[in-house]
Amino acid sequence: MTKPSIPKGTRDFSPVEMAKRNYIFNTIRDVYALYGYRQIETPAMENLSTLMGKYGEEGDKLLFKILNSGDFMRGISPSDLSEGASGHLAAQLCEKGLRYDLTVPFARYVVQHRDELQMPFKRYQLQPVWRADRPQKGRYREFYQCDADVVGSDSLLNEVELIQIIDTVFTRLGIRVSIHINNRKILTGMANHIGQPDKIVEITTAIDKLDKIGIDNVKAELADNGVTPEAINRLQPLFQISGDNDSQLAAIAAMLADDEVGTKGVEEVRFVLNTLKSLMVNGQCSMANEITLDLTLARGLNYYTGCIFEVKALDVQIGSITGGGRYDNLTGIFGMPGLSGVGISFGADRIYDVLNQLDLYPTNAVQGAQVLFINFGEAEAARAMQVATQLRQAGIAAEVYPDAAKMKKQMSYANTLGVPYVALIGETEMQTGVITLKDMQTGEQTQLTTEQTIQQLTK
Amino acid sequence: MTKPSIPKGTRDFSPVEMAKRNYIFNTIRDVYALYGYRQIETPAMENLSTLMGKYGEEGDKLLFKILNSGDFMRGISPSDLSEGASGHLAAQLCEKGLRYDLTVPFARYVVQHRDELQMPFKRYQLQPVWRADRPQKGRYREFYQCDADVVGSDSLLNEVELIQIIDTVFTRLGIRVSIHINNRKILTGMANHIGQPDKIVEITTAIDKLDKIGIDNVKAELADNGVTPEAINRLQPLFQISGDNDSQLAAIAAMLADDEVGTKGVEEVRFVLNTLKSLMVNGQCSMANEITLDLTLARGLNYYTGCIFEVKALDVQIGSITGGGRYDNLTGIFGMPGLSGVGISFGADRIYDVLNQLDLYPTNAVQGAQVLFINFGEAEAARAMQVATQLRQAGIAAEVYPDAAKMKKQMSYANTLGVPYVALIGETEMQTGVITLKDMQTGEQTQLTTEQTIQQLTK
Repeated sequence: MTKPSIPKGTRDFSPVEMAKRNYIFNTIRDVYALYGYRQIETPAMENLSTLMGKYGEEGDKLLFKILNSGDFMRGISPSDLSEGASGHLAAQLCEKGLRYDLTVPFARYVVQHRDELQMPFKRYQLQPVWRADRPQKGRYREFYQCDADVVGSDSLLNEVELIQIIDTVFTRLGIRVSIHINNRKILTGMANHIGQPDKIVEITTAIDKLDKIGIDNVKAELADNGVTPEAINRLQPLFQISGDNDSQLAAIAAMLADDEVGTKGVEEVRFVLNTLKSLMVNGQCSMANEITLDLTLARGLNYYTGCIFEVKALDVQIGSITGGGRYDNLTGIFGMPGLSGVGISFGADRIYDVLNQLDLYPTNAVQGAQVLFINFGEAEAARAMQVATQLRQAGIAAEVYPDAAKMKKQMSYANTLGVPYVALIGETEMQTGVITLKDMQTGEQTQLTTEQTIQQLTK
Repeated sequence: MTKPSIPKGTRDFSPVEMAKRNYIFNTIRDVYALYGYRQIETPAMENLSTLMGKYGEEGDKLLFKILNSGDFMRGISPSDLSEGASGHLAAQLCEKGLRYDLTVPFARYVVQHRDELQMPFKRYQLQPVWRADRPQKGRYREFYQCDADVVGSDSLLNEVELIQIIDTVFTRLGIRVSIHINNRKILTGMANHIGQPDKIVEITTAIDKLDKIGIDNVKAELADNGVTPEAINRLQPLFQISGDNDSQLAAIAAMLADDEVGTKGVEEVRFVLNTLKSLMVNGQCSMANEITLDLTLARGLNYYTGCIFEVKALDVQIGSITGGGRYDNLTGIFGMPGLSGVGISFGADRIYDVLNQLDLYPTNAVQGAQVLFINFGEAEAARAMQVATQLRQAGIAAEVYPDAAKMKKQMSYANTLGVPYVALIGETEMQTGVITLKDMQTGEQTQLTTEQTIQQLTK
């Protein structure tokens, strides 16, 4: 019989991997809660009518579709079949699909439950999503997203708080990051300013590569994509903008002074940066990580309408590990227009890799039980069970090896699991009523009462 | 545009529902960890070859199948189609399905990762499962299972620990329960004893109804199902067994003395009950809930081979809220025979209903932020953001209302969310550097410094 396996692009998570993932998820969850965001969950399956057309043509193809239960061929005519594997046939065979992200289900949730929701609605969601992407290194067909969004408030204080959340999460995780901020309105302003509002996608795509390919290549790409020489010329000042956030803001403000939208974008970013700067706690800026205005940052162009964020790890080359931004029409697709929102999403898989590479997991985050009782036989094991029960009542995670196996096997079990202490209750200990506690790190053995053992292990 | 909806049998979970569910899941998770069980996760999608044939013919039909990506009609001949909606065609259209329970994926996991696992392997798993069942009250197409299993150990100490886990979880949740125990070998022994080993299913199904339908009807049902009058006669002593666990054990031991398997079952139950009884902590039995030998308890007959457990709430009529047992051949279906295991599964949805009905959720389990700062305008909000940041650094969940909306609207937000305190920083407070803290329960307002506010809220 061949070994069973799992579908490509999916993963099993072992106890050690789960402990590490939980450490990340719990950190994010705790910080979200600290800011008053509240968790919701939506079903893994959504109606395909909810999902289709929301992620572009390519996205539709990447949706996992669920075969209708029962007689799924009913109502399907020979002509449907003769067309071959069309999306049309898939739509007849399948009414439901697996969620592709957390954003569309959230929009659906808000519209469906609009009458029950108190606005502004601050929600977070930590759930897996599924995409029928070609699996490759670091890209999976099932992965978790960790989103927080607030809808029903235009206030830029929400942007400020989300940046604080990002800062707090990475500070708690011990990852040094740089938080990049830009504003979709600034990008629009640039395109307007150079007289080519229709070329915003081409312009932002090109300038986004500035660091990598240099000014000349950016200009060549712009020209290739139909941006006129005159427009490229008018964009020139952008390439000269440098310095700290304030200098950059002043420069871009001057450049976009003729454009209303662009000026609005500059003002929004200025407000967010100034508010963050003013948040002094005990005389110190409350932010541990640097926030950088990055005028070339572009993401979610079809989607974001205001501030956009992106986070990069400083000590590992891995691309963006968190992103987000403001959108003005999330729920419009479901018939509820005019609801503004802003959100962020932590990239759990990449954060996992960063923590692994930098070896930043705290020991107690990945540890199972704190003590293993060796099993010396029926009477000794009964006593061990009793002491273990007392330890657990004191909040100490304790295991009793269930079988009276060879000592070597039991010690090897403790070693493999990384249990920090082993407790021995043999014949002698039974008589004297003590426990021999072995520190697995130092090898040191001490004879302790149950009370002393509890004290030692709660240290 | 019609309101969007979700597939029938699935659910959205609101913030309050999620908080309650997390309270349950965290309680179970904490107790599992306290006993050294470690969490794993498996993918939502499994290969259909892993799932098919594991849940009986009916189960196969209830699997959600995922349409192959890309050209799913490739290789499907007209003759495949002319057969109509056969399982054969579904198998060609779909390679993957959604997991139906956590047990088969766990078995698959153990076999697939056998070389990496340290035995005994104690794992827990909290994940959703999907079944294309007809939805009805209390039965969903997506629901969570909360399983713990240990494989690779025959020791009955595992049974003892799992019962302790059940007892601890329900004690922590505040639900009074009765834990029922029986043993599959006792049921086999009964069938052997009356000379009808082939009728074990009919016998156990009938006697399971003893409480509901009475002795005469049980006997009639047995006769209807082909159990001979002589055999029914030999079963008679079972109906007379009563009293405490020890009396029942003595009686069933006597009745099954002629049967080796049955006697083994009695011994197993006796060991588990005696060990539990011997676990005195500070002179008291460590179990808070009663454990009852229930000789008519039958569950998972095709599956369990030793002790079986079932838990019933004492104060709510709702059926079994937790169950489990020992199996001897979980991984045999995947080519790894001879691995014994024992496990339990908490019914989260029913536990949720019980806690709701008895109103047992602790206040802090369902609460969001602890304090809301009223937004009186830009300058005041900036100060509020600063104080909120300090509160959060002290671990207090705090919200700042993002918009300078009407006071009434902001207070209504605080009320709806059940925020226990509201903090007011208006013009006066700005000048004097204090915070007016309003207790939403009593209506009492106090003027406090930031330090005093932190003290008040961490009480």
